[in-house]
This record gives sequence, C-alpha cells and structure tokens, in this order.
Amino acid sequence: MSISTQPPSGMRDFLPAEVRRREYVVARIRDAYERHGFAPLETPAMERVEVLTGKYGDEGEQLMFRVLKRGEKLPDLQPGVRPADLVDFALRYDLTVPLARVVAQYANELPRLFRRYQIQPVWRADRPQRGRFREFYQCDVDFVGTTSLMAEVSVIGAVREAMGALGFADFVIRVNDRRVLAGFMELAGVGPGEQGGVFTAIDKLDKIGADGVRRELAERGIGADGIAALDPLLEAGNDDAAATLDGLGARFAGRSSTGADGVASLRALLALLEAEGITLGALRVDPSLARGLSYYTGTIFEVALAGMASSVGGGGRYDGLVGMFRGTPVPAVGFSLGLERLLVLLDERGMLPALPSGATAMVAPLDDAGRAAGLRFARDARAAGVAVEVFPEDARLGKQLKHAESVGIGHVVLIGSREADAGIVLLKDLATGEQAELEPGEAVARLRELTAR
Amino acid sequence: MSISTQPPSGMRDFLPAEVRRREYVVARIRDAYERHGFAPLETPAMERVEVLTGKYGDEGEQLMFRVLKRGEKLPDLQPGVRPADLVDFALRYDLTVPLARVVAQYANELPRLFRRYQIQPVWRADRPQRGRFREFYQCDVDFVGTTSLMAEVSVIGAVREAMGALGFADFVIRVNDRRVLAGFMELAGVGPGEQGGVFTAIDKLDKIGADGVRRELAERGIGADGIAALDPLLEAGNDDAAATLDGLGARFAGRSSTGADGVASLRALLALLEAEGITLGALRVDPSLARGLSYYTGTIFEVALAGMASSVGGGGRYDGLVGMFRGTPVPAVGFSLGLERLLVLLDERGMLPALPSGATAMVAPLDDAGRAAGLRFARDARAAGVAVEVFPEDARLGKQLKHAESVGIGHVVLIGSREADAGIVLLKDLATGEQAELEPGEAVARLRELTAR
Repeated sequence: MSISTQPPSGMRDFLPAEVRRREYVVARIRDAYERHGFAPLETPAMERVEVLTGKYGDEGEQLMFRVLKRGEKLPDLQPGVRPADLVDFALRYDLTVPLARVVAQYANELPRLFRRYQIQPVWRADRPQRGRFREFYQCDVDFVGTTSLMAEVSVIGAVREAMGALGFADFVIRVNDRRVLAGFMELAGVGPGEQGGVFTAIDKLDKIGADGVRRELAERGIGADGIAALDPLLEAGNDDAAATLDGLGARFAGRSSTGADGVASLRALLALLEAEGITLGALRVDPSLARGLSYYTGTIFEVALAGMASSVGGGGRYDGLVGMFRGTPVPAVGFSLGLERLLVLLDERGMLPALPSGATAMVAPLDDAGRAAGLRFARDARAAGVAVEVFPEDARLGKQLKHAESVGIGHVVLIGSREADAGIVLLKDLATGEQAELEPGEAVARLRELTAR
Repeated sequence: MSISTQPPSGMRDFLPAEVRRREYVVARIRDAYERHGFAPLETPAMERVEVLTGKYGDEGEQLMFRVLKRGEKLPDLQPGVRPADLVDFALRYDLTVPLARVVAQYANELPRLFRRYQIQPVWRADRPQRGRFREFYQCDVDFVGTTSLMAEVSVIGAVREAMGALGFADFVIRVNDRRVLAGFMELAGVGPGEQGGVFTAIDKLDKIGADGVRRELAERGIGADGIAALDPLLEAGNDDAAATLDGLGARFAGRSSTGADGVASLRALLALLEAEGITLGALRVDPSLARGLSYYTGTIFEVALAGMASSVGGGGRYDGLVGMFRGTPVPAVGFSLGLERLLVLLDERGMLPALPSGATAMVAPLDDAGRAAGLRFARDARAAGVAVEVFPEDARLGKQLKHAESVGIGHVVLIGSREADAGIVLLKDLATGEQAELEPGEAVARLRELTAR
C-alpha cells in the first residue's frame, strides 16, 4: 500500500480542465498548419535504438529512454554484457528524426514535395525542473523535398500563423544561416573539431554577456585574433536586418564564399518573407543564433516573445538527415513549437479563454419515475447534440445541484413523477436560480441554443 | 547505411490519409462520450513499474515494455542482478490502472462522481499478427464513485452512442455479472484456486464448442457433477434476456446468494437500459461471458457486431482497483473501445466517408512577380479560413498541376506577372478543367465556399 500514486518524476497527469486547455492550443496550431497546406503524420512512440543513435550528440544519447528487451531476447546479466545489449527500442526523442526515417521508408508513397505536421509527445530524461518536463509535446511543421527558400517561407509562415491564432502579437522570429557561422569559423581559423565548443560558448551570449563568451573562448584555446574575428557575433544585435546583412556581406566578401552564400540566402529569404507578410519588425537577423542540433545545414530560426530570452520554438534546414537513412540526400526544413512553453506564457498573460468544463445540463431525477423519464429526456437532448449527464444516485436535490456545480454544469433539468405524469420538466439555470416549467421538446431546444453559443 | 527504416515490429507509421481516418473515428467517439457528460483525462506514457505490477496477471507482466534505468541508477551488470533491478518505468498497458492511480492521487481535486474518458495509445509486446499491434489506441469511458447501476447505464449508453455515431446499426451488447459466474462456481464446487482455469476454458466456448470445454474442464480435474452444474453456461445462448434471467434466478434460488445477487442486479440493469433506449434486441444476457481481467467485481459487458465472434470493446465494474492504491475502496465501472478493430470493420464495410486530404487550393506562380503576388493571395485566402499552399519551385505549369493532383488539391490559382499587373488571378478547377479570370477577392470568396462545404 506504499506505492506512490504520483506519475513518474517529470511527467504529468492532465485532469479534464488542463486537457481542454491543451486541446485548445493544439487545435489552433493544427488549424494554422493545415491552412498552410501541411498534412498530419504520426509515428510510433518507440523507434529502433539504431535509428536514433548518432543523431542528437552525446548529451542527447544520455537523455534517451531505452526499452529493455523481452523474453528470450534479453541476454543473461553477467560481466561483459553492456547496457546497449539489453535494449532494442528507445522512446521518441524528437519528431525530426522519425520524419527523416519516414521519408526514407515511404519514398514511393509520399509526394516528392511533402509538407507534414506532427503534434506528438517526445521523451527526454532531463533533470526535471520548473517548466521542463520529461514528457512534453512538440508541434512540428516540416517541408521535405526542395532546396527552394519557399520551403523556409512555408514553415515560418505556418508558425507565424499559429502564433497569431493563439493571440501573440509581440513575437520576433530570429533568423540566421549555418553558413554565416561557418564563414566566421573560417575567418577566425577555428577548425571543425573546435566549432562545437565555440557554438556552445556563443550560445551563452544572453546569459554571460560578450566578455563572458570571450573569456570562455580564450579558455577553449581560441587566440586573440580568432576571438576578434568573432566579435560581430558578440556585438549587441542590430534591429535593422538590411544593415546587418550589408555588414556581414562586406565582412565575407572575398574572404569566405561559404559566409557570402549564407548572407545571399538570407537576403533572398527576407524578400520572400516580406511578400508572405512577415514584416521586418517581426523579423531579426541574428548572426549569433546557433541552435543546438548538429544536423542543420542552412537557414536556422527561432521564435521568441519580445523581451524574453528563451524561445518558444525553433528549427532550420537539414539537407543531410534523410540521406543518413536513404543514401541519396533529400533536402528538408522544419520548425518546431513547444506546447508547454506556449501554455505557460498563455497562462501567465491570461490569454486562454474560459473553456466549458462539463456537460451543458444535468438531469436531476427526483424519484424512480423521474429517473426513467430523465433517461429518456437525456436521450432526446443528446440526439439534438446537447451534452447531458444524469445524476446516478438517489439523493436530495441539494446534493445533486452541488455535484452539478462541482463539474461546471450550468443548467439542471428536474424530473419527478409529478413532472413525468404531466409531460413536463423543470429547467433550472444555476447561475440565476430561475426555473421554468417546459415541455421536454422546448427544454431541449433551449439547451441546444446554449450549446450552440 | 544498413539501418532499417521500418517502424519497430508491430508498430505503425500513419501517413496523412490514415491519420485523417483515425482522427475521424476518434472525433466521433469523443463527441459521443462528451454528449454523455464524460470529461477528458490524459496520463503519461510511462508509469512506475510498481504501479502496473500485479494488475494484469502473469501474461500481462510478460507483455509489458519496461524502461531501462539511466545514468548512475543503472546497476552494474553481473550475476545476481535481476532484470527487475534494471528498470524503473513501464509503458502504459491499459488506461484503467492509470485511471485508478489518478483517482487515488487527486482524491481532493476530482469530483466524487467522476466521469472521465481517455483516448490514448497503450503498448503490449504481443506477437504481432494481422490486426494485432504492439502500439494501439484504447477509447475508454469510466464512471468512478458510485455503486449505482446508473454508472453502468452511463458507460454503456456512451458506447452505444459512439457505435451509432460511427454508423454501426447491427451491434449487440452482451452483459453478464461476475457474481453469476461466482454462483456457478459455488454450485459446481469449484474453489477459488481453480476458477481462473475454469474461466479460461469457458472463454473458449466460441472456438471449441461446449463438448470441447467439457473435455478441458475434465482435464482440469473438475468432476462430472461439477461439469453438469456448469452446463447452463455452455448451452446455446438464449436471445430472450428475460427468460435467461428467470432460468438463472431459479437455478440460484436458495443455493447461491451471490449468484442470486448477480441475477437481481442484471434484472435491474435491464430495466434502466430500456429507459436509456437500449432495447432488448441490441442486448443479450450471456452467462458464459467471463472477460479476462481479474479486477472485475460485478457487471461485465462486451460489444460486438452481429455475427462476429470477436468484440470491438468491453469492460465492467471494478470496485476494488482504486482501493489497491488508496486503501479505501472507490467503486468504478468502465467500457473500452478498441480503435484498431473499429477501423478494420469500418474499412471492410466501406463506412468511412471520403475525407479531404490536401489544402483547398494551390497557388501556381508563373514567374517571380507571380510568386510575390501568389504569397500575398495565399495570405488573404488563409485569413478567410481557406487552406492554401504555394508551389515552391520554378517549374512548368504541368509539373505544378501534377503536384496538386498528387496531394489531393482540387483547385489551382495561377498568377504570373501579367495577372499581377492586371490585379487578377486565374482560378482553375482541376476536376472540370474550367478556368475563370477573377479579382483576388472573388477568388478567395469562391474558395471559401468550397471550404465551407
């Protein structure tokens, strides 16, 4: 009897009111993605371990939930057996790698240009902390099959639409290009082996400031010249995207063709985004934006609320990932929104509407005859689309009304033998206390009006 | 490069058309459950192992997916370490045990009378075979907190409504009571230790026939008198529920008060179900119905299509399960529909409607000026609620139209520099080939009409 009834650490039960809030947000995001022509995909909670291996870096591998083999497949436990020998599956760690696997697997069934969205949970064994969970939902939108920047425009446009549908007006989309970062690495003479550490240091800019990053770069063995070459990444950001791109273009001209390619691509993207209606006010070119995952190859982006350091979503172009499964490369770009962060912000700002919690009405039977008549009334009301529950026990009316209030029901239909004999019901509005004697059909019609609101 | 890109054995990827079919079915079931006043609950994919242990019998324990401990919690692998020492969590095996845990955990937050539904995947490491999967969805509806038979009426009514909403007219709800089975065990002198085997044998009635069951009972050591006492369980079922109950009542009178209680309860349930509109034609009292799970204590039921041996769902009363977590017992009754079986039947019978697959329209830019104008048109159309995608690449019109067809888009909006300059678009109906020259606002209005259909 000492079993804990809490969910596993970092995971959550969602009681009805919370499910409804989550469903409200998910529905708005899904509608926005659908309006941009994206179609739904679902993949299993588990993947073969080898599908996930080598995609998320060392830290990612440590955070994976792995599944023990079963039956005869489980080897005897003895020295020499490694943990990796004991597991065959792992829980989904993100939605991008499963998408890449799906694209490789169903190449002949999927359209060459494949717009898909996927809203499902992922699992990471992170240390639980405020606002960070071990089971959480990602809302991904990806465009597979083209190197055209219109794919970037498509996923950024879909996310912009989702943010707008949720009521956010003050969000900023930060964009950069991995080739711009690669250009800086060239200029600073940072070899491929050191770049991961440099990106990690630059990623801390918001937290430790430019001087902090410079100290960390020096500790990582980057020389003074190299650090100086990275200075533009550490400067206070510039709100003027065009000026930022001009500055970057001048810096790379004749010195890094990779960097210049990144700048040219960002310039073309900005022109297309303007036609899509994403004005420069909501857009910011940020050369220090790095994004953690290693599989990005081109444009990268994040969406954050103005004045907030942490983003609510991000993504980028990953033209090599599908090729890891399929041999031939398939270009792709994707954007992921984090459901949990959005919910926290919507809640803090009071942006979630009041959502209905219970049925529209409860039938309160006043005696046995009322119960039979009440079941019939409920059936008629449901046939008209009204959500109705019937109080299940013999109980005083006061107790019945108390239950109705406790589950958020606003109207009660009272039926006893007197009402059953007279072919009427009493419809009570719990908010006003008003009570009307009605024919059952009339009462259903009134409840239907309440439902339609 | 030799990594398999298939999902794990027995699990499935759902491409867009299949997701839409599943969502159609889930939406109908959810609406039906909501109309009966049930509220949504969601629980984590994982539970602590000890929460699931001892709830599903030996076979169930073998079929659980268990999760390897991580980091320092994982003990060194050496003789003496048992597999159980390596795991802390297991994947959800059904939705009933998590519900019982939730009821125990949130006793102070939940209403005493708690109607909840839950539609989520569960995982069982069964041998994969046609129509049986290792990740599948259950659609559960449970009423917690009362011993009143109105709780049975409520969940049976909700399932009846869901079946009706899906278009099934020929389903039968089989009902029995564990106390009727217990009464027969008393009459046959079968002790508690033997009952599990007897139920297993009786469960095979549809497969091996009455004589087959009798042989198996004899093999299990049940004497001739005992087998004779079980005869009524093996007789061809009787469509007349009232006559069946009369026969059972006479059999138990003065010989098994437990059996008699079960019969009286079924009799009262039938009267209430009649008021709920579940006529005796769709209802069948079947004393041989046993249900596999050990936690049932009273009414048990199944829903099957007429003439089909296997059910599409089932459930029953389990007044002891919550008490396993909480100490004090909390009565409950639940009914579970299997999404996968329903989908197979709906598909076989051609009962699934044609569902829209792609966006309402695709914008086909004929040149760069057309692309910018096309992005603006798409934005206006989306603002009006129309799902629109924009073809992303420079391509001949034929190629663009081919893509539209491949993703199920019926209308294409052609825009080039000529159209952009003239402030018009060409709206093409791919089914008829008709093409109209329209102002953008007119074209949006037409597409909106198509969306509203």
